[in-house]
Amino acid sequence: MQTIESLETPCILIDESVVLRNLDNMANCAARNQVKLRPHIKTHKIPEFALSQVAKGASGITAAKVGEAEIMAEHGIDDIFIAYPVVSPAKIKRVIALAEKIHVIVGVESIEGAKILSREAVNAGVTLSVRLEVDTGLARTGVAPDKAVELAKEIAALPGLDLSGIFTFKGAVFEGVGTLDLEAAGQEEGRIMVETADKLRAGGIAIRDVSVGSTPTAPYAAAVEGVTEIRPGTYIFYDRMLAVMGACSKEDWAARVRVTVVSVPAEDRLVVDGGSKTFATDVQPGQHPLHLKGFGEIIGHPDAVFEKMNEEHGMIRTSGPHGLHVGDILEIIPNHICPTINLHNEVYVTQEGVIRAVPVLARGKLA
Amino acid sequence: MQTIESLETPCILIDESVVLRNLDNMANCAARNQVKLRPHIKTHKIPEFALSQVAKGASGITAAKVGEAEIMAEHGIDDIFIAYPVVSPAKIKRVIALAEKIHVIVGVESIEGAKILSREAVNAGVTLSVRLEVDTGLARTGVAPDKAVELAKEIAALPGLDLSGIFTFKGAVFEGVGTLDLEAAGQEEGRIMVETADKLRAGGIAIRDVSVGSTPTAPYAAAVEGVTEIRPGTYIFYDRMLAVMGACSKEDWAARVRVTVVSVPAEDRLVVDGGSKTFATDVQPGQHPLHLKGFGEIIGHPDAVFEKMNEEHGMIRTSGPHGLHVGDILEIIPNHICPTINLHNEVYVTQEGVIRAVPVLARGKLA
Repeated sequence: MQTIESLETPCILIDESVVLRNLDNMANCAARNQVKLRPHIKTHKIPEFALSQVAKGASGITAAKVGEAEIMAEHGIDDIFIAYPVVSPAKIKRVIALAEKIHVIVGVESIEGAKILSREAVNAGVTLSVRLEVDTGLARTGVAPDKAVELAKEIAALPGLDLSGIFTFKGAVFEGVGTLDLEAAGQEEGRIMVETADKLRAGGIAIRDVSVGSTPTAPYAAAVEGVTEIRPGTYIFYDRMLAVMGACSKEDWAARVRVTVVSVPAEDRLVVDGGSKTFATDVQPGQHPLHLKGFGEIIGHPDAVFEKMNEEHGMIRTSGPHGLHVGDILEIIPNHICPTINLHNEVYVTQEGVIRAVPVLARGKLA
Repeated sequence: MQTIESLETPCILIDESVVLRNLDNMANCAARNQVKLRPHIKTHKIPEFALSQVAKGASGITAAKVGEAEIMAEHGIDDIFIAYPVVSPAKIKRVIALAEKIHVIVGVESIEGAKILSREAVNAGVTLSVRLEVDTGLARTGVAPDKAVELAKEIAALPGLDLSGIFTFKGAVFEGVGTLDLEAAGQEEGRIMVETADKLRAGGIAIRDVSVGSTPTAPYAAAVEGVTEIRPGTYIFYDRMLAVMGACSKEDWAARVRVTVVSVPAEDRLVVDGGSKTFATDVQPGQHPLHLKGFGEIIGHPDAVFEKMNEEHGMIRTSGPHGLHVGDILEIIPNHICPTINLHNEVYVTQEGVIRAVPVLARGKLA
């Protein structure tokens, strides 16, 4: 039997009992607020975790990529929202093929994209279920709320499409353009979406689903009357960024990266065998608004700073003599778990002393 | 037959004729300077490219991880330097198993690490070929030159190890702690290493290999009398960072990322379907000393700035109206190609109009 000590590093270790508790807590939050839960699988990319989410009451899942949706469908998930503007004919053909087997909804956010979707649907003789993306502050994709009615009417008029809902991802919290008050951010996200849905309904479009996103805002947005669905993803594992934000406690951390000390250049410095091919580098130290110190929190060494990475080297500085030796193992909570998982072909899941390797099957499904 | 137009995005497209020219040029540089060429495969992670490098005269290859070396050996590479301090008993056992089949050299840079290697070698009844890592300015791993003799003597006295050479990676160029004068940096790297080798020989240690690293410094370090080997990696594809450094021209770029425009929020803004799961984020915009603008250069739009990424979204800003539409394809040269390739399960290689998918077999071999 594999033991923790026998795991080669670097690797990701996931505590399944914490995962199951996190899944329960979010499922209870959705039930309490009478909204549907449609978790985003971009965080774990692992079919068995998606199936656990559904078993605990999720109405379906969310994916970003058609390739992710295909993998999840192969493993028994039968209701998938691809929350992304799918605009390439080849990809739309794959969506249509998938929609013959399971329930699929796809994102749309421009009339150009909607026309391509419509054309492919008509050619295939099918109706595609679509949701209109609304920008609630991220300034990424999504129609501005004040232009949503006009665009929704155009989309609703296209053949082959059933505009069944609207969705958003509240990025202001993450992007530093807004507030770190999660409650206020979630309430604003919900309010904008419900108002937009009401305007669309007044314009004659039968909006059924009002879907909001994101682990930090979901509990607050869910409480807004009129919101029908939340799509959190990171809540399955949480991460350092979310703890600093106040969206979780350290006890909620379910995934850690195990590394080995390979060099001790000084009594206050260490080099470990995990660098930028092991830990995501998208959330950089000092990045606004969280001003995180370093690339992760080192368990048992909260003052140590994971200050630099090369591809296969992680450089850690401690405030005093660390007392560690070449060959010692450290465990690190990464700043951002989703793209960190994406670097690993498999993760190790532990429960009650049993460890098993689980392949990250939807990893690298970029298209 | 697959055409460029039929490739789904995001994906990496590699021009094989440029690859072959880059390989020839570096092989010629090594031959001209009468040094061995031992390319680092961390850039491509693809056995067939490693075999091309050997076919063009490389004396072997360099890898960072045991798992990478195992994959390369399975595919016919028979001389591999693992340029990394391998300090875990389980990994050393794998190195010993590999060394029964092919020629393997492994890095060492501390007496603690050397003792673990020695113990495992003695237990297995073998002698492991090792090279001592010397720090020539990166302050990452490697012994300081003024402490190299003492450490080398200790290592040479350990049973089961054959200390056959020294190696370095000249990071000052990349890390912003030194110069961007590549010629001066390469010459300094070579000089420090040759001086260190001479001191070790005067101390009675028969140093045969004096190995230097890195694409930008290799051509200059190779010219230093006494250097015996260069280990460049990125030269197979080059990237935006190396062009800005002056280590290549844009004609040398062999790998580009193809993305699709999925949203056009304004006449000077675009969103493409590649974000931080498609492009590495380790070399950030504005990072010292290169001060790169954005995350990559957009072919045909040199003034456009690839200013932000989320996991599946890339945000591009142009200096004026871009005239692009939803569904259009763009090609981008990433800041850093090595960790970008590492995100992709396969790449597409094109030559004379024929395109084939090539799996990145050593991708994600973290351990």
